[in-house]
Amino acid sequence: MSYVKHLKCIVCGSTFKEEDNMLTCPLCGDKGSLDVIYDYDKISKVTDRESIGKSKEISMWRYMPFLPVEPNWTKPPLRVGWTPLYNAESLASEIGTKTLFVKDEGVNPTASMKDRASAIATTRAHAAGKRIVACASTGNAASSLAGSAASIGLRSCIFVPRRAPRGKLMQLLIYGATVVSVEGSYHDAFSLSAEAINKWGWYNRNAAINPFLLEGKKTVSFEICEQLNWEVPDWVVVAVGDGCTIGGVYKGFHDFYLAGLIPCIPKILGVQAVGCQPLVKAFFANMPFEPAEENTIADSIAVGVPRNPVKALNAVKLSHGTMIAVSDEDILQAMPLLGRTTGVFTEPAGAASLAGLSAALKKGYIDPGESIVVISTGNGLKDIVNAQRAAPPPIEVLPSVKELEKNLKVKAPDLLKEE
Amino acid sequence: MSYVKHLKCIVCGSTFKEEDNMLTCPLCGDKGSLDVIYDYDKISKVTDRESIGKSKEISMWRYMPFLPVEPNWTKPPLRVGWTPLYNAESLASEIGTKTLFVKDEGVNPTASMKDRASAIATTRAHAAGKRIVACASTGNAASSLAGSAASIGLRSCIFVPRRAPRGKLMQLLIYGATVVSVEGSYHDAFSLSAEAINKWGWYNRNAAINPFLLEGKKTVSFEICEQLNWEVPDWVVVAVGDGCTIGGVYKGFHDFYLAGLIPCIPKILGVQAVGCQPLVKAFFANMPFEPAEENTIADSIAVGVPRNPVKALNAVKLSHGTMIAVSDEDILQAMPLLGRTTGVFTEPAGAASLAGLSAALKKGYIDPGESIVVISTGNGLKDIVNAQRAAPPPIEVLPSVKELEKNLKVKAPDLLKEE
Repeated sequence: MSYVKHLKCIVCGSTFKEEDNMLTCPLCGDKGSLDVIYDYDKISKVTDRESIGKSKEISMWRYMPFLPVEPNWTKPPLRVGWTPLYNAESLASEIGTKTLFVKDEGVNPTASMKDRASAIATTRAHAAGKRIVACASTGNAASSLAGSAASIGLRSCIFVPRRAPRGKLMQLLIYGATVVSVEGSYHDAFSLSAEAINKWGWYNRNAAINPFLLEGKKTVSFEICEQLNWEVPDWVVVAVGDGCTIGGVYKGFHDFYLAGLIPCIPKILGVQAVGCQPLVKAFFANMPFEPAEENTIADSIAVGVPRNPVKALNAVKLSHGTMIAVSDEDILQAMPLLGRTTGVFTEPAGAASLAGLSAALKKGYIDPGESIVVISTGNGLKDIVNAQRAAPPPIEVLPSVKELEKNLKVKAPDLLKEE
Repeated sequence: MSYVKHLKCIVCGSTFKEEDNMLTCPLCGDKGSLDVIYDYDKISKVTDRESIGKSKEISMWRYMPFLPVEPNWTKPPLRVGWTPLYNAESLASEIGTKTLFVKDEGVNPTASMKDRASAIATTRAHAAGKRIVACASTGNAASSLAGSAASIGLRSCIFVPRRAPRGKLMQLLIYGATVVSVEGSYHDAFSLSAEAINKWGWYNRNAAINPFLLEGKKTVSFEICEQLNWEVPDWVVVAVGDGCTIGGVYKGFHDFYLAGLIPCIPKILGVQAVGCQPLVKAFFANMPFEPAEENTIADSIAVGVPRNPVKALNAVKLSHGTMIAVSDEDILQAMPLLGRTTGVFTEPAGAASLAGLSAALKKGYIDPGESIVVISTGNGLKDIVNAQRAAPPPIEVLPSVKELEKNLKVKAPDLLKEE
């Protein structure tokens, strides 16, 4: 059996027995997001750093006691998680800090961190006897759900706003999802998906509504702890859209803390785009958020009406972190910076995290002596159009070594002098 | 020290001491590709199935005794290899076979199997004190080299034919490579790179010339053996372009066989596209190949003048395998077939492997009772243009549940009946 104790409303604090058809608090309605609470005492009796370290499960399932999944449930075959954490020394020195790690979530099976959430969704949907899973998404949640559903033998129906990047759209069509492209914003796609899910009884994978998805995302923090040999970093930097991902990052550290596996929780820096920063504004005004425009190239975080604002703001506040907004120009510059210093090709939202870190260092929010983990939430291949804006052009030549030499002399003179 | 004994010319059989600046046989010239030969007796004294299984190295480096790399050399940080091998039951039943596995090479750090070769290249370049690495490539070798070089702190100069897909091009520009886009075919890009490498003394990562790269690629076969609990499959299916990848696949099994780790070598099915099948024709004619047109959407295998024909044909012949050619239509159909049955989104060359398997089953080359591994060589995100040709269109609606229902009734009626 799983170690889930109950579900707890983050607004009114009421607790409820775990049930599949309960997604939000029956007392508070849609605003009453639920938190999954475990029996941490019990967990700490069956698990410790050593037992985790010995696990042969090279995926997010190595943390089973911390997941809302029964051991005998069928899990989707796609291998999710245990993504690499790179020590980014050159990058650190370029942006003026010392200890910097990059967590590359782009090597997940559908190339983003959302695979962690979708693995939980399809596991639970399958266990509940559902045949169809559905969600609205700016892209990554959608492709991850479509891929995970395909691998476990479920149908998927995905609602996307029309602006979703082609790479992400192609993924879900290739995975065999029924894709509903909604003329409107992410908000419109979300509302339509909610209506349809209610009407036809599909499994709801909308992360802001379904409390179990965040439980998948939190495994990224578990891995960070383990991969740093249980030395908790001072900061973790992550881009913020709907608020579920940053909520998951916090929950992971919090769960490990409650189970006695780590002594403290890192400060979390939440990054939004200048053109869509409802939560940054809410954080600094200490007020509920106001709906914002969705005016940024970073589509994963272009969410004007975040569906999980409370968990997002709690993650920042309770971790004693802060928030920051970065321009699209900064995001575009951060993509090749990360690429040429680490070999990690990130999508704009991932680049936003790095741009946010640079800005936070300049503003003095983060001290260069502190240790930092930046999460690259997805693969840059998902959004080639923006990569093209960010990348320098190639050198075009005829097949002649003379013409090549002429060009290199101007554009890359250092290549002509190998020692 | 490494266990390399010598380099052996595949044409004249002469052996040579391992040297970094020797790439092909000094007696036979460019046609004399070299094979890296190890001291298998010595290896078998220090390694066995159990010691390999115990390795904590979750990457291609878990097979160190079989690699042309000294233990103390600096390796590129990007985590390459130990990609998942999926048991593809639904896919097997759709194409009429029983035991079928898919090796997903698309989750490598730059999203293709070429990362294995580039990891060896940058390790050896770094150890040799080189500052610049270079290659010509239809795309995947290029992006893998650029990413690997960035991660280990080397410069890279990449020659691509102008037709290279945008996704692959963007990757290498983001990784900070100097990209030379050559007006002409892959052959033209290759020749120009060879001239430039000679002239300026860069490290040569052209896989057909540099014998050490195949040593990286072979690790895919090592993993297949281990992931199947040392049960050698009857067939391994892989798409063929330059001939180096299939050569590597064979070499992996052959090395393990010589070291006494496996009792036999699987038959290898080499797949080319109908529009570019010089090696299929050469195989059935039992003659040297004739240069062919490069007329296929599968850019990774659009190589009219393969640079490693001998190793490619040897892989097929010595393994008692065969070859087959598939149409672009079959390739496009195989992409969504693989996607919806396994959750793996493959590039056209990977889809070619699957299409080749289907065709080989129909032709009776492969018996449905035999066990089969298909290698998906790269991620479909690398080539969105072809994915779009292969994918069905989305359903476009206004944000109205009535309009949605009308559309679903026609296009996906089974979604309206969740039990």
